[in-house]
Amino acid sequence: MLKLPQRLLLGPGPSPVPQRVLDALATPTIGHLDPAFLALMDTIRSQLRQVFQTNNEMTLAVSGTGSAGMETVFVNLIEPGDKVLVCVNGVFGQRMADVAARCGAQVHTFEAHWGTVFEQESIIDAAERIRPRAVAIVHAETSTGAHQPVDKLGAALHELGALFLLDCVTSLAGAPVQIDQWQVDAAYSGTQKCLSCPPGLSPVTLSPRAVQRLEQRSQKVQSWYLDLSMVRQYWGAERFYHHTAPINMLYGLHEALSMALEEGLEQRFARHRAAHRHLRAALAEIGITYVSQEGFHLPMLNAVKIPDGIDDLAVRKRLLDEFDIEIGGGLGAFKSKAWRIGLMGHGATIQNADTVVKALTKIVK
Amino acid sequence: MLKLPQRLLLGPGPSPVPQRVLDALATPTIGHLDPAFLALMDTIRSQLRQVFQTNNEMTLAVSGTGSAGMETVFVNLIEPGDKVLVCVNGVFGQRMADVAARCGAQVHTFEAHWGTVFEQESIIDAAERIRPRAVAIVHAETSTGAHQPVDKLGAALHELGALFLLDCVTSLAGAPVQIDQWQVDAAYSGTQKCLSCPPGLSPVTLSPRAVQRLEQRSQKVQSWYLDLSMVRQYWGAERFYHHTAPINMLYGLHEALSMALEEGLEQRFARHRAAHRHLRAALAEIGITYVSQEGFHLPMLNAVKIPDGIDDLAVRKRLLDEFDIEIGGGLGAFKSKAWRIGLMGHGATIQNADTVVKALTKIVK
Repeated sequence: MLKLPQRLLLGPGPSPVPQRVLDALATPTIGHLDPAFLALMDTIRSQLRQVFQTNNEMTLAVSGTGSAGMETVFVNLIEPGDKVLVCVNGVFGQRMADVAARCGAQVHTFEAHWGTVFEQESIIDAAERIRPRAVAIVHAETSTGAHQPVDKLGAALHELGALFLLDCVTSLAGAPVQIDQWQVDAAYSGTQKCLSCPPGLSPVTLSPRAVQRLEQRSQKVQSWYLDLSMVRQYWGAERFYHHTAPINMLYGLHEALSMALEEGLEQRFARHRAAHRHLRAALAEIGITYVSQEGFHLPMLNAVKIPDGIDDLAVRKRLLDEFDIEIGGGLGAFKSKAWRIGLMGHGATIQNADTVVKALTKIVK
Repeated sequence: MLKLPQRLLLGPGPSPVPQRVLDALATPTIGHLDPAFLALMDTIRSQLRQVFQTNNEMTLAVSGTGSAGMETVFVNLIEPGDKVLVCVNGVFGQRMADVAARCGAQVHTFEAHWGTVFEQESIIDAAERIRPRAVAIVHAETSTGAHQPVDKLGAALHELGALFLLDCVTSLAGAPVQIDQWQVDAAYSGTQKCLSCPPGLSPVTLSPRAVQRLEQRSQKVQSWYLDLSMVRQYWGAERFYHHTAPINMLYGLHEALSMALEEGLEQRFARHRAAHRHLRAALAEIGITYVSQEGFHLPMLNAVKIPDGIDDLAVRKRLLDEFDIEIGGGLGAFKSKAWRIGLMGHGATIQNADTVVKALTKIVK
């Protein structure tokens, strides 16, 4: 049998997976075309719509991790030569620009300092100048801990004829994500953040406007695996076989979604905020401050400055070896400069906030 | 808790998953950069090399199902304008041609009747005429039950300057797959066939020649998610974060590979052959014959003619509802004409062969 250490997962994901979800993963596999499995897929779609707060018909789980969800959105909605405006203030904005370019898009990046957020008005101004077919932005920038306001973008971008694409990998089920109210055209997430399911699936939703764009493509989607014009016929009433769905992962996702909805989204968001506030106060007491912009800290992912003179890797190694606690290091511009402490999903508790601060205090003092 | 029927999976995959693998899936999640997880990845790579019978350094599990493995091979090794020769005698050959075309390849298909196999000499002749950069063929055509001989292709294709790409989705761990001896340059498989792990990962291996092709590309791989020039830096010594690996699925794969290697590959192949012979004899007694070419039946996937006057869907529905047995229907040209009975991995037993024939007899007589 597999012998692995037990860890308290307080990094940028995966987050702690509750026993109910682990048990669901181990449910005996049935076929991907079994009527009982197809019924489960319908349930999952309906659960995903609730979590995304949308009525979008095309709401499903892509058979890959969050980055596959990102790629799904771009390969389906972008055609070679399309102008795309990508807002970049961290690693995941950069990744979107890279993915869009690989689809043959004419990519325009709109940049802000790492850790800061964009003024929505400035994004709309940029879109007015550039007139892109789509504008993409990260809601919860996991590399910087910045929480981007996006409530005013949808209506304005639609007036300009642009689709509004949103990365919700880290925010979904941990902070409000209101796809319909914000008029988001395509959003994707991951399972291993605030849903507290292991990684392996990417919830994706497309608005009717985005579906229309997909249907009006002049050429095939460059990815066969992620081609939603085919994938939708498996998740939809047609039930055409496309690829073999990751069956047991979907069992896990169903259980994770059930837990989120049993708790209630508002309650869940409040729990994330409370754990975050508690952590922030406790970190302040030991002089640790945030790298993300004041007033725009993500509740589920706390990106903080590594104190001067402290060895990043040594501290994280001791946290793991002596306390079995995982936190994340910095990425990109924040490498060796920031730690990323996740209080996500099942892990978003005041107790976990206390545990990690206590351990950090012992190590750095 | 999730309530699902228990099924005996005797279709074209997923195959029955042993309890050990289900238990492994439910192992508590740890981080994708945790040293304990990285060590597990090394073990998996080594196990995959044994199962693929290769020394290829670049051997890993792609974070998607078998079709993602197919796409991985094409997007990494093909550039726009490359000539690719695809052998098509079933659905998965067709799929390869579609995937290659989406990479911008100039696709030449070489066709054979469904259910038959290609003479290797004829493939080499076609490659001599066309001079492609790559030749792709399916080893175990899951849609037709045909077992394609491929032992003579590698050397001949290399003389012609072509890479040799092989789909081993259904054959790996159920029949000999000798990547090095056959001089295969890129192969992919799935976990839900003869490995008896749930779907969700795709074992992939690339020869040094294929890696060189990858390194000499003139443009970026069109898929960010499947870009092996980056993925290899996570699976390799660099340990660069690329995307979050499907951690629990890899626990399952590790256990499934351990079981295959504990049994021994030769022993496992013999078990598949024995179950197949038993099934074939039992089916013959009730007058059911194969649609695949005599002498080239796959042991793990038995594609048989639906007897005249028998309603395909009604029989499969009764098998499922009354006996909890899943078998597969026909795909493409074999839709409504063939059944596909899988005796794969954990399910490749004489007892299962008897069980399905007994149930079929009760229904069709």
